[in-house]
Amino acid sequence: MTDRAYAWFEQKQRERGINLDEVKAALKALAIETPSWGYADQGTRFKTFHYRGAARTPFEKIDDAAVVHACTGACPAVAIHIPWDRTDNYAELRAYAESKGLRIGAVNPNLFQEPEYMHGSVTNGNAAVRRKATDHLLECVDIAKTVGSGALSLWFADGTNYPGQAPIRQRVIWMRECLQEVYAKLDPGMRMLIEYKFYEPAFYHTDLADWGMAYNMAGKLGPQAEVLVDTGHHAQGANIEHIVAYLLGEKKLGGFHFNSRKYGDDDLIVGSMNPYELFLIFYQIVDALRDRDAGVRKQAADIAYMIDQSHNIEEKVPAMIRSVLNVQTQFAKALLVNPEEVRLAQERQDVLGAEHAVRSAFEQDVGPLLAAFREANGLPADPMQAFYDSGYLDKLRARG
Amino acid sequence: MTDRAYAWFEQKQRERGINLDEVKAALKALAIETPSWGYADQGTRFKTFHYRGAARTPFEKIDDAAVVHACTGACPAVAIHIPWDRTDNYAELRAYAESKGLRIGAVNPNLFQEPEYMHGSVTNGNAAVRRKATDHLLECVDIAKTVGSGALSLWFADGTNYPGQAPIRQRVIWMRECLQEVYAKLDPGMRMLIEYKFYEPAFYHTDLADWGMAYNMAGKLGPQAEVLVDTGHHAQGANIEHIVAYLLGEKKLGGFHFNSRKYGDDDLIVGSMNPYELFLIFYQIVDALRDRDAGVRKQAADIAYMIDQSHNIEEKVPAMIRSVLNVQTQFAKALLVNPEEVRLAQERQDVLGAEHAVRSAFEQDVGPLLAAFREANGLPADPMQAFYDSGYLDKLRARG
Amino acid sequence: MTDRAYAWFEQKQRERGINLDEVKAALKALAIETPSWGYADQGTRFKTFHYRGAARTPFEKIDDAAVVHACTGACPAVAIHIPWDRTDNYAELRAYAESKGLRIGAVNPNLFQEPEYMHGSVTNGNAAVRRKATDHLLECVDIAKTVGSGALSLWFADGTNYPGQAPIRQRVIWMRECLQEVYAKLDPGMRMLIEYKFYEPAFYHTDLADWGMAYNMAGKLGPQAEVLVDTGHHAQGANIEHIVAYLLGEKKLGGFHFNSRKYGDDDLIVGSMNPYELFLIFYQIVDALRDRDAGVRKQAADIAYMIDQSHNIEEKVPAMIRSVLNVQTQFAKALLVNPEEVRLAQERQDVLGAEHAVRSAFEQDVGPLLAAFREANGLPADPMQAFYDSGYLDKLRARG
Amino acid sequence: MTDRAYAWFEQKQRERGINLDEVKAALKALAIETPSWGYADQGTRFKTFHYRGAARTPFEKIDDAAVVHACTGACPAVAIHIPWDRTDNYAELRAYAESKGLRIGAVNPNLFQEPEYMHGSVTNGNAAVRRKATDHLLECVDIAKTVGSGALSLWFADGTNYPGQAPIRQRVIWMRECLQEVYAKLDPGMRMLIEYKFYEPAFYHTDLADWGMAYNMAGKLGPQAEVLVDTGHHAQGANIEHIVAYLLGEKKLGGFHFNSRKYGDDDLIVGSMNPYELFLIFYQIVDALRDRDAGVRKQAADIAYMIDQSHNIEEKVPAMIRSVLNVQTQFAKALLVNPEEVRLAQERQDVLGAEHAVRSAFEQDVGPLLAAFREANGLPADPMQAFYDSGYLDKLRARG
Repeated sequence: MTDRAYAWFEQKQRERGINLDEVKAALKALAIETPSWGYADQGTRFKTFHYRGAARTPFEKIDDAAVVHACTGACPAVAIHIPWDRTDNYAELRAYAESKGLRIGAVNPNLFQEPEYMHGSVTNGNAAVRRKATDHLLECVDIAKTVGSGALSLWFADGTNYPGQAPIRQRVIWMRECLQEVYAKLDPGMRMLIEYKFYEPAFYHTDLADWGMAYNMAGKLGPQAEVLVDTGHHAQGANIEHIVAYLLGEKKLGGFHFNSRKYGDDDLIVGSMNPYELFLIFYQIVDALRDRDAGVRKQAADIAYMIDQSHNIEEKVPAMIRSVLNVQTQFAKALLVNPEEVRLAQERQDVLGAEHAVRSAFEQDVGPLLAAFREANGLPADPMQAFYDSGYLDKLRARG
Repeated sequence: MTDRAYAWFEQKQRERGINLDEVKAALKALAIETPSWGYADQGTRFKTFHYRGAARTPFEKIDDAAVVHACTGACPAVAIHIPWDRTDNYAELRAYAESKGLRIGAVNPNLFQEPEYMHGSVTNGNAAVRRKATDHLLECVDIAKTVGSGALSLWFADGTNYPGQAPIRQRVIWMRECLQEVYAKLDPGMRMLIEYKFYEPAFYHTDLADWGMAYNMAGKLGPQAEVLVDTGHHAQGANIEHIVAYLLGEKKLGGFHFNSRKYGDDDLIVGSMNPYELFLIFYQIVDALRDRDAGVRKQAADIAYMIDQSHNIEEKVPAMIRSVLNVQTQFAKALLVNPEEVRLAQERQDVLGAEHAVRSAFEQDVGPLLAAFREANGLPADPMQAFYDSGYLDKLRARG
Repeated sequence: MTDRAYAWFEQKQRERGINLDEVKAALKALAIETPSWGYADQGTRFKTFHYRGAARTPFEKIDDAAVVHACTGACPAVAIHIPWDRTDNYAELRAYAESKGLRIGAVNPNLFQEPEYMHGSVTNGNAAVRRKATDHLLECVDIAKTVGSGALSLWFADGTNYPGQAPIRQRVIWMRECLQEVYAKLDPGMRMLIEYKFYEPAFYHTDLADWGMAYNMAGKLGPQAEVLVDTGHHAQGANIEHIVAYLLGEKKLGGFHFNSRKYGDDDLIVGSMNPYELFLIFYQIVDALRDRDAGVRKQAADIAYMIDQSHNIEEKVPAMIRSVLNVQTQFAKALLVNPEEVRLAQERQDVLGAEHAVRSAFEQDVGPLLAAFREANGLPADPMQAFYDSGYLDKLRARG
Repeated sequence: MTDRAYAWFEQKQRERGINLDEVKAALKALAIETPSWGYADQGTRFKTFHYRGAARTPFEKIDDAAVVHACTGACPAVAIHIPWDRTDNYAELRAYAESKGLRIGAVNPNLFQEPEYMHGSVTNGNAAVRRKATDHLLECVDIAKTVGSGALSLWFADGTNYPGQAPIRQRVIWMRECLQEVYAKLDPGMRMLIEYKFYEPAFYHTDLADWGMAYNMAGKLGPQAEVLVDTGHHAQGANIEHIVAYLLGEKKLGGFHFNSRKYGDDDLIVGSMNPYELFLIFYQIVDALRDRDAGVRKQAADIAYMIDQSHNIEEKVPAMIRSVLNVQTQFAKALLVNPEEVRLAQERQDVLGAEHAVRSAFEQDVGPLLAAFREANGLPADPMQAFYDSGYLDKLRARG
């Protein structure tokens, strides 16, 4: 049936004015980094359920990431988290990853799990704590160089729980001083990705609370510093695709942490709560890929796509595959928007026509396209089925 | 100075038409239950910081609660949590509490920390899990009888993370069946308090997601079942005092879990984020205490006030005292609303006049009143200072 | 191409275990009422843009509704709003509608546009205003009988803007007294649909603020009173499909006002902001249509589907058609969920499997199905194109 | 009683370490601009209730503003709105204001009430509309020069209602081009205040949706462009005082539009929904007034405080007085925070101590202070009473 389905799909898209060769080239270029911590047990503040098969070491996490890549062909890199993935030999870790066909992606420092950080890390009023935090960041830059990573991905839990608790303006200055020191150590090609978050674990103010604060910080640091958008880190109702478009226009969008949320930072499977939002994010990216400003095009092409979800009640490896498939699905749909149709409707200020041009792409069933694309690239047409057929799940569960 | 301050305060309130004897009688009747778990370490999903002095056993928790009561005179009961406060001799626990001048308050079952409950407790599709959950509830009823508690306080973490995960309507039926079995075991004077929560730890749907679902469940169980309002369990913008007023009108408001939030269920010190909201809640309660319907008056008088906060970065015992003081402060202010002034303004549809009558009470400084009230009742005028002066903090820290 | 597309679609659904005959029967049964006011100019508080062609009289509105029905075949009824559609001869209005192949749907009283209602209608502290409001409701019951409508659809703007402004509990009683009087006048087959709203135009408290208050009111009135869910009337993050499922389980869901929102009560084209949410609402309805409780099945079958959107910047008639098509699309997708697949996954507590069973239906492209269904029923395969081809837009614009 | 009350207050503050002379000097420096449009009828999209006495002409609005200033002594300027306050002789308008003891404050262009602006003003895809919008802005610069205003206050309703409707990134460029042209015409001392808004009247994306977009635009325009914070223009939960502190640190906070909200942009009486939030905003400002960076101090001292509320159901002039009094009240409380107490608690990372230092200032009753301050400045101790005693309300109502 696949052939017939694809033939029909192709014809339909041709009628819609879509060149599927370009679509497939774009799909081929899509690389999604998976996070090492997504293969280990995670939970809520109420309970971390242990899953049989959860990865326990950096090496097991790489094993799992390799399986996800084998099934999907879309996940050639794995992000690491220090100290969760600390080893005494990072070159070995890198070699292990490469032996599995992976590279090490972003290096993620941890500045929230040691007692000293209760009142902040790079914003702490105590200079010794800021020193310790900065040293950890510098250590991560070194690790990045060793493992061949091109990105330092920074999320700060820093903030306060009560009015008056700390000097808000001064903390901005302290953070900038620390990050400037770290920025100076980056190799020319490296990126510093700066994440923001609306709240949690700080419940009154978060030092980098929104894209504006991350953007302003990145601007002060220099061109290698960029903003990282975690799709779960916004206020209710925030138009994330607008922020994405805006940052692309400013040439400061560095990457994504993809996950889903309905309420807080729920860290659910990507695209599971509001798939249209994910599609609209990709629509803005695809639109930027065609911008007349080459700088915008380059920025869009260089986006680092990363998954950052927390599997509390679902089996980890297939949940990660599900996220990857959902990302591919919405990206593929975004590629089916006919830009000329949108442009013409916008020019005649035809609201219904422009909305239709975008939404109708979302309504396409890209199953036949993705199956054909995968087969043409030597991949299983149904990656999830391939995973279940692989017997890997049994191997995982044997871990205990 | 206190005397002069109080004299001036008294004169001012007399001019405002307030009878301070009634105010003091109401203050005297205010009993606030503190939670045993509030004296132990708590945290966010990112980190539980250990505090030197955090209570480690049910007995240490009672010690701490007794100190809070000694300082404030307002906290004669301590809520317990099973299994966190499990002992092999509940009569002993009760006796220990009583020896410290306390009684055991609400018994709080835990239906979220065992692996079986990953997919729900009394709503679990697996009948054996529902049985286990119901048995735990029944055990808690027995414990309540043994410790002399008048209330079973129920919070369910039950819910789902994804569309389709479980049959929503069927789970309502399962929960009702379980609770009916538990309800049947209550002694005549006991209350079953049913809490609701907007989200977390379930991130798609929570089986008791709002007051309406808790209220409907309580109504089906019978008159001893009532709704418990946790002030941190609502959607952003929800008018909590409206819900309070509504439930009082329906004679189904059983009690409160007080805490503060700005974002999610942040569990901060009571009254620290939006003191006016706490005041307005008490304004509705005070208004109900004067209802012409005796049933509404009784309902308001019988409210169980409980604190449920999580001290992540603050010292636990003084944070609890702070919450108690904030509750007293806002309750005292609510008692300073002149009901006749409000009524007359409402009758002439004078928006500004009615708003003024309520807000102006909030603007009073009730410090002199509370100090005088405490001294008259043999309590320290400044409970927080009394705590720091008591040397108890050093004792606590010696726990390690 | 349509035939090939449909053939492929049919084969695919057969493989997914879906019986398309049942799907088409359900589609055929779907009747969506359009609102007369949706054909007239509407706006925000900042500006009502006039549209050339906006309907100016009840008769023009019926003309427009008839066009929507002619194009879609799904909109046999038009809701009216009193006094916006006031005439001196309702029998004539009915006859006019019937001559156009329509029936008059729900009658919507207006209790917010006269100066007397500034402080409330059925909750007003002034008994004369409550009388006036009740009389208007009674008038609307009479009109409903005259025009052959089976439903009185009640939305109250009643509420307050400031704390203390009005006696919250007393207003509940006043509203109940008024509605009891109105309820008593309903013919046996008539329904009273009670709508709730989170906020606006009242900005402190709304007397019927959520489903729980509407549900409780309906319960006190009697079996002919039911809850109406407007999809734009909830707090951010509220799980609307959960509320829908819950009300169906309680046999109290009477109908919908469909529209879209991203922020407040934005009243945008149905399904335009979050199509997955609309799909999930229909998934719960379709699930209820198969409940083992006949009462739940009947309740689901009898839902009154109504559109209530406000076209501020878009052409009105095609915007209405777009909303109708979006409703049909998401309903059709919901019918493609394989209930057995969901049930089995739920029973084995397979989160990923259950989620997949639901989401995969959403990912189907139902275009071929709807085109085939329409053609089989003598309707244009593409209703929007049919509208533009009809020349009706030119006629409309001639209205000025 | 006032004297005794003040004496006690003074003693108490002395004990708290507060110098009341500095407090009074700061209060004296507080100038709050009232908006001309706040004296005219306003409403929601459902209804604009007419108020007897609502101002109908620019001159009547100035009359009303003069009364507010006479009663409060705090409102020496009135903001105007073009074209609502359009006259053929702006020199005459200025002279009229000056004859009433007022000056003309910010000039507010209107770019949302003409049909051309349905798809945007300075972001419109149609260059002719952008030209028209820019010309209107230039006209307003001229008016500002004529009336002696130092500020152009810009709020744009620009945005879209649906995905795809317009090219988001391009609109940023168009807006910048228009504003650069306007900026170039400013006199050296003039400020361009740029307002942002989360949503409404655009319901999908707003071109300046948050402080970050306004800040970035202001930065690109130059030092005379600054951000204006409207307290009702944020997502639920946004920490406004954090944004205020941040913008002060960046020396880009130009001014405020004060009002209250619980839900959307409700435009209620300032400080009526969450007085603690207003206090915390002022706490950040007062803190910045003492910054060691002279630039930050200057920025804080130069903030333009403006009221922008919409009186839907309340009498306009007294509602404006109420807002002014609430601003003064919270500012006065913020001045009672002992900065040294905060600093020391912050330095020892004493969360409870720092929180107490801030909150305890809020708990003071500043009534005696404000009464004494007013009397010392030849103003009525109770401005609201003075207004009601003035007979002005009767004069107003005579307008019809």
